[in-house]
Amino acid sequence: MKIGLAQINSVVGDFPANVKRILAAYRECLEAGAELVITPELALVGYPPRDLVFKSRFVPQCLQALDYLAGEIGAVPLVVGYIDVHHPTRPGKPFRNAAAWLEHGTIRHRIWKTLLPTYDVFDERRYFEPGTTCEPVLWNGWRVGVTICEDIWTDESLQRPFYDRDPVAELSARGIDLLLNLSASPFHLGKPAQRRALIGGVARSARVPVIYCNSVGGNDQLVFDGHSLVADAGGCIRAQLPGFAETCRVVDPFATPATDASAEEDPAGQLYQALVLGLRDYVTKCGFSSVCLGLSGGIDSALTAAIAVDALGPQAVHGLTMPSGYSSSGSVDDSLALARNLGMSCDVVPIGGAFEAVKAAMRPVFAGKPEDVTEENMQARIRGLFLMALSNKENRLLLTTGNKSELAVGYCTIYGDMCGGLAVISDLPKVRVYEVARWLNREREVIPWNTIDKPPSAELRPDQKDQDTLPPYETLDAILELYVEQQLSTDEIIDLGFDENTVRWIQRRVDLNEWKRHQAAPGLRVTSKAFGIGRRMPIVQRFVG
Amino acid sequence: MKIGLAQINSVVGDFPANVKRILAAYRECLEAGAELVITPELALVGYPPRDLVFKSRFVPQCLQALDYLAGEIGAVPLVVGYIDVHHPTRPGKPFRNAAAWLEHGTIRHRIWKTLLPTYDVFDERRYFEPGTTCEPVLWNGWRVGVTICEDIWTDESLQRPFYDRDPVAELSARGIDLLLNLSASPFHLGKPAQRRALIGGVARSARVPVIYCNSVGGNDQLVFDGHSLVADAGGCIRAQLPGFAETCRVVDPFATPATDASAEEDPAGQLYQALVLGLRDYVTKCGFSSVCLGLSGGIDSALTAAIAVDALGPQAVHGLTMPSGYSSSGSVDDSLALARNLGMSCDVVPIGGAFEAVKAAMRPVFAGKPEDVTEENMQARIRGLFLMALSNKENRLLLTTGNKSELAVGYCTIYGDMCGGLAVISDLPKVRVYEVARWLNREREVIPWNTIDKPPSAELRPDQKDQDTLPPYETLDAILELYVEQQLSTDEIIDLGFDENTVRWIQRRVDLNEWKRHQAAPGLRVTSKAFGIGRRMPIVQRFVG
Repeated sequence: MKIGLAQINSVVGDFPANVKRILAAYRECLEAGAELVITPELALVGYPPRDLVFKSRFVPQCLQALDYLAGEIGAVPLVVGYIDVHHPTRPGKPFRNAAAWLEHGTIRHRIWKTLLPTYDVFDERRYFEPGTTCEPVLWNGWRVGVTICEDIWTDESLQRPFYDRDPVAELSARGIDLLLNLSASPFHLGKPAQRRALIGGVARSARVPVIYCNSVGGNDQLVFDGHSLVADAGGCIRAQLPGFAETCRVVDPFATPATDASAEEDPAGQLYQALVLGLRDYVTKCGFSSVCLGLSGGIDSALTAAIAVDALGPQAVHGLTMPSGYSSSGSVDDSLALARNLGMSCDVVPIGGAFEAVKAAMRPVFAGKPEDVTEENMQARIRGLFLMALSNKENRLLLTTGNKSELAVGYCTIYGDMCGGLAVISDLPKVRVYEVARWLNREREVIPWNTIDKPPSAELRPDQKDQDTLPPYETLDAILELYVEQQLSTDEIIDLGFDENTVRWIQRRVDLNEWKRHQAAPGLRVTSKAFGIGRRMPIVQRFVG
Repeated sequence: MKIGLAQINSVVGDFPANVKRILAAYRECLEAGAELVITPELALVGYPPRDLVFKSRFVPQCLQALDYLAGEIGAVPLVVGYIDVHHPTRPGKPFRNAAAWLEHGTIRHRIWKTLLPTYDVFDERRYFEPGTTCEPVLWNGWRVGVTICEDIWTDESLQRPFYDRDPVAELSARGIDLLLNLSASPFHLGKPAQRRALIGGVARSARVPVIYCNSVGGNDQLVFDGHSLVADAGGCIRAQLPGFAETCRVVDPFATPATDASAEEDPAGQLYQALVLGLRDYVTKCGFSSVCLGLSGGIDSALTAAIAVDALGPQAVHGLTMPSGYSSSGSVDDSLALARNLGMSCDVVPIGGAFEAVKAAMRPVFAGKPEDVTEENMQARIRGLFLMALSNKENRLLLTTGNKSELAVGYCTIYGDMCGGLAVISDLPKVRVYEVARWLNREREVIPWNTIDKPPSAELRPDQKDQDTLPPYETLDAILELYVEQQLSTDEIIDLGFDENTVRWIQRRVDLNEWKRHQAAPGLRVTSKAFGIGRRMPIVQRFVG
């Protein structure tokens, strides 16, 4: 039995292009001998469409596209993800997260997702009504279970037992020979390995092969990594499709020899690939072809530039380095060295004249008050202003370069270095930034070693170093992991052996800076708990704990 | 039977202060002769706590606060909103949206919310597991139905039939003499009248009095307006508590004469009061005591200043008017006249020097390219930079002054006039801005009439007027209402008789500017569909319809 997996990159809401992409993948699988082809979840729509579904013509257009697609399908069935309507007068949400079994020019079956994730980045109960029955599809004498993403996630693989239904058990009770899963499972560090364990376990417990077809591509903050899987009835992985790339492959779950997919994984390499794909898709799906960014001589902007050049090519990336009187000579030299290494252009635009003019204008209002953080922020905001001017003049999307550690504690200037349409590495803690930069330099110097080795500095006052204000990054990142990702209380973190003053300082800084993150550019999610749509804190609140 | 309604303003996550507030209200009701006291939904917590509930100590602290509160309650019961835990190994969400019946120092009953809104600004299925049974509480020979907010909202009052449960019907089937509802129902235009119709209808159909206690106060984007209600068994409104203010009142639903609450409503006045309360709570609950803003001489900044002065007092509001070479003399004069009318301070800070310095710095990079929108944005961003400098130097929260119409079509500069911690009137369409400004001037000139009467202009190039770029505001707002709030397609709007080019231009501008709104300051919601947490559009998408 030859199954084609169409691991494709859909664009949210672009029905004509998604139909074209699905048909091309279907035909490629046919040529490779597929007897059945499967796409990712909501492949026709792009995941997640969010509130677009409420637009009056969105789901009707989706259903038209499905009808057209059905007309193009012959004897080899295509199982494709789409959005269906729920009956307007029956209680519940207006839509269904659905899969259609297309065959011989018609829609032979419609399958509805049963388990609707409503946590972290997922909001499916906002839109969809769950399916109520799980029935196998009869096909060529086989009994095929069709499931959608969360339907096969077991209690052990979730944060807690969320559901009182178990679609795999319901299908198994009715008897199946094969389990299909259409998925849109976003990447975070460790997720590909977690999925392999999950799919192997499901196959073993249901005693049938599992065909798991995942999305690939970036949509806003989410990066889908592909890594589609085929497991045999014993739970052995028979095939894993590539990560971070569109691919079609035809696999016989009963005949393909087992594979060892786990060897290829390097955390830094996976993070880097996810960011390259996320950046490329964000920029190009938005209709831009080029970007700009500020180069400070520091590691964050250097890594962001390297990712951008990898994603879009060196011609598409333009840097500005904007020295002030407080800048070290290294900041310009290292920026120009980076630009040379990457083959991108970089202009030097000093900020001194604008800084003096802004200070002069505000002097009567400030009436002799001493300089303070206000003047530090002015410098960052003048740089933001220059970069946005470049972005406007040359129609380049501005990339902002802050990392997760500084975004967490607000060690960044809103409307200054936070300016930009995409926050490329804002989900990478600083320690990971170094790790990925070193990985990138594993064969040759991409990022100047001086940038990696010098102590980090914002250079907004004389001889400033990050560690004048912040705890050492190893400590900061460890505490942030406990406070932000694991959501432990300060007392619990202190009990683990961390310094009380440091922990309480970090807690206060994280909470007080929620308002800045509210106005931050979207960031590419690569950890299990990113700032952004998966973490929804009130700004006005007074909880301490 | 005398019921005390404690219409209070809770702060999210501030358990000690909320306990104090609830006890003070309870005792005030006791003194007024209450035999039973009821609070709003989640009164102990503040609504909505959002992802704070996932912090390891949040719900435990809530339960401790509830125990303490119970210890303070005597023979007169208190029915109070809080968050309960759901069993950790049973399927479902980890928490319950709950009400506790406190009496004689103990928790006599726990009631769980059955219908969990998960649409618009609500995300309750992300956090809460619904209750499974609805049982009346027996009290002094009475059978009392206790419900929480959505539990009593009927299908007709929602956008569609969402639920397959009906708590009021379930309680009625078991027999009740009285229905209590703890609510946190946010304001939007028309909501108070809608609630009166709803509560009257529920009372009539259940044939019992309904005591409806609503929250008051601002939490992030939501403004709770109070307007708590008591209806008799015939559906007549016997009492309506004031809007936009904390109040305790004791009402006998069987004895109080009927009241006509609908007479007092004026849309402009309600919008204004909601914005004053929302601004005051946002600023003070964040720990600020003063604000600053830019005054352009235009109507948006003038109305924002008037709201701020009303909310915080004239001493707490500092304006900057920042003329350029393109500014009319009126822009400074009207700003200073406004400041005089309001009794607030206003400094004049010209931007010319900084504008020239920025242009000079970028000249080598721009290499002779002609001036365009880049230079318009530079001016707006220099103003934003000045205002943020004032905010930083004097620790004032910066208010941003854009209206809903310009935010919709992106007629605003990100990191420029969009700078600020709160977007006060960003949910007021421009036509409503005029309406509220005229209402404010109904007795004396608060906003200079010249500001109201002159044609609106951004003054970023010579003789610029808004209507050079935008359709007339009446047309723009009418189309935006159909496109953004009603989510109609362009074709449907054109079929209603609007000009095709105008409709398509607006559709394109709204969709293309999603990225700007993603980085916008939180805005106070006063319409049924605001930008912000209740409208979640992808940025990267290509749907046209």
